[in-house]
Amino acid sequence: MKSLTHYLWFNTKQRQEIIDITDEVTTQVAKSGVQEGLALVSAMHISASVFVNDHESGLWRDILEWLEGTIAPWDPKRYRHNDTGEDNAAAHLRSLTVGHEVIVPITQGKLDVGPWQRVFYGEWDGQRKKRVIIKVLGE
Amino acid sequence: MKSLTHYLWFNTKQRQEIIDITDEVTTQVAKSGVQEGLALVSAMHISASVFVNDHESGLWRDILEWLEGTIAPWDPKRYRHNDTGEDNAAAHLRSLTVGHEVIVPITQGKLDVGPWQRVFYGEWDGQRKKRVIIKVLGE
Amino acid sequence: MKSLTHYLWFNTKQRQEIIDITDEVTTQVAKSGVQEGLALVSAMHISASVFVNDHESGLWRDILEWLEGTIAPWDPKRYRHNDTGEDNAAAHLRSLTVGHEVIVPITQGKLDVGPWQRVFYGEWDGQRKKRVIIKVLGE
Repeated sequence: MKSLTHYLWFNTKQRQEIIDITDEVTTQVAKSGVQEGLALVSAMHISASVFVNDHESGLWRDILEWLEGTIAPWDPKRYRHNDTGEDNAAAHLRSLTVGHEVIVPITQGKLDVGPWQRVFYGEWDGQRKKRVIIKVLGE
Repeated sequence: MKSLTHYLWFNTKQRQEIIDITDEVTTQVAKSGVQEGLALVSAMHISASVFVNDHESGLWRDILEWLEGTIAPWDPKRYRHNDTGEDNAAAHLRSLTVGHEVIVPITQGKLDVGPWQRVFYGEWDGQRKKRVIIKVLGE
Repeated sequence: MKSLTHYLWFNTKQRQEIIDITDEVTTQVAKSGVQEGLALVSAMHISASVFVNDHESGLWRDILEWLEGTIAPWDPKRYRHNDTGEDNAAAHLRSLTVGHEVIVPITQGKLDVGPWQRVFYGEWDGQRKKRVIIKVLGE
């Protein structure tokens, strides 16, 4: 079995931000030499997500507004976690909803994804250094 | 390492529909000859889901009503993504919430799932050709 | 390829409960001897979750209140699934939202997670025997 481990670092300008990381995943899959296998792409923080969706800026705005308006409003007073001095409980709930990792299949040496599928890092509490692991496994 | 890749095609009659694909996954696991490993089952579209839950038609209705009533109402006017000419932003948000893939463990050549666990394709924007990948990996 | 399969059993005192299972996952990864690979940690029931988040009791309260207040209120009368005699449709919807499994990367023989990441079992309909599978795969 072949394996490759690579870390991506982020320090976003906005506190919430969506970043397309498909090219980085593609690069690591090529470097790994894996022909048949998978790439695990996983946020190493509990206030961020990795997800697969569409490269379309209107949708990214929809996602950010939906997380604020429907899933988990930021308002720090709502949450007990914030009694610890944090104000980011909402970011945790957003990470739980969208998920923190994806598994991308690799077939014949390439990401085996649909025509519109791209891999994204979803930063829900940024403006500081955070990390994603790409782990490629297969043969 | 053994690997097997298989694609399922769908063209649903309803725009939203839930389809039990456990038998197809079981068949591919048997074909693969994998005794210990995993099956990745992943929607290749950004407006669909793959999930594990219960084969019970009342629950499927609950899921569809919950996606419409609580998670992301279809109403195209709510979303900026739909300024592109699409009307399916809600389907993207539903895919993000429920997820687009599952990993099913394989033990002694069989899906190692609980008594009520079944694998489903969740179509959130159908009535056109769409695809799911089954990737079996292991030994 | 090495593989190890282990089952955790739960019978929670509360109907909803969040339990840190990181130590059990760490133990199984060490036993497996896998240096590079992954650990699949997956609930074997359709009314429970496995997720990665923060070991902080205020946040656990936030999660339980958010599942009840925002995601899927328990109220059995809302759901058709409960016409079958069940009262736990909400637990199914909570499992769909938070997810039922995680994949944890293993690097140099250890869980390759961020400083605050812990693995949790989320019981959404307990007070009875339920199970989680830990499947370690790699080399």
